[in-house]
Amino acid sequence: MAEASNSDTGKESPTFKIRRLEISDKRKGYMELLGQLTVTGSLTDEEFDRRFQEISSYGDDHLICVIEDESSGKIAATGSVVIEKKFLRSCGKVGHIEDVVVDSEFRGKHLGKRVVEFLTDHSREMGCYKVILDCSVEKKVFYEKCGMFNRGIQMSKYFD
Amino acid sequence: MAEASNSDTGKESPTFKIRRLEISDKRKGYMELLGQLTVTGSLTDEEFDRRFQEISSYGDDHLICVIEDESSGKIAATGSVVIEKKFLRSCGKVGHIEDVVVDSEFRGKHLGKRVVEFLTDHSREMGCYKVILDCSVEKKVFYEKCGMFNRGIQMSKYFD
Repeated sequence: MAEASNSDTGKESPTFKIRRLEISDKRKGYMELLGQLTVTGSLTDEEFDRRFQEISSYGDDHLICVIEDESSGKIAATGSVVIEKKFLRSCGKVGHIEDVVVDSEFRGKHLGKRVVEFLTDHSREMGCYKVILDCSVEKKVFYEKCGMFNRGIQMSKYFD
Repeated sequence: MAEASNSDTGKESPTFKIRRLEISDKRKGYMELLGQLTVTGSLTDEEFDRRFQEISSYGDDHLICVIEDESSGKIAATGSVVIEKKFLRSCGKVGHIEDVVVDSEFRGKHLGKRVVEFLTDHSREMGCYKVILDCSVEKKVFYEKCGMFNRGIQMSKYFD
């Protein structure tokens, strides 16, 4: 009865469409969404376009997906995956999932899970034998719901 | 007095040279070395060459380094790094270190540290703001000696 309820309040049921990042998504709040994850800095349109082209040049080996809330034209969630080619595992491939974030306005709607599933499906179609990601301990339960398991720890070194 | 000692035994002091992977390294035990890390499968020369060319097409964005023991012509250690291009952090880049392994015959000579430093230096030169890797808890102390810190956990999903 969700639709009747929305009809009662006069609000449209939100329509979320998942697709690849498009260059026009900068105007739809894509960078502000990334800003909910970490520091983004301010990018000019030219800088954004240049990086978009660099990433696009990798084709299916670097995919950024977004979920657009079509009723508002706002980017509600995103995530990316880099396909790494190896020699081991009979020239196997691994999908590295990065930068999954859901706009605080749209949380609790399973959009994060849809993003992870989209990136996982892409990795499987690309012939990967596994997909991996790093997260904080607090996110472990969420990723377990996405069918993932904890396998080790992340080490990092930041440059000045 | 290490040199005198080597001279006494008639053995040359081993000379380890670190460099990028070359296509001829398949004949120098590169795949057998990876086999000490995980399953490699058996690759024909053609399959190896094809994957080598695919990885080479990424230029400096996917570097595989090896350490060759020049006295025996054997590959003693290896590791790789994939440079990921992001929009966040003012179009920042991240180095993902993968598949670090030292031949059991050559352990205890700090070759693993040299590999990690080589890949870290490359990431810094490429303009990365950080370098990251995943490992088992048992390897934490080793990577701390390489200047890295534990920041989170790795989640993974294997495909059938």
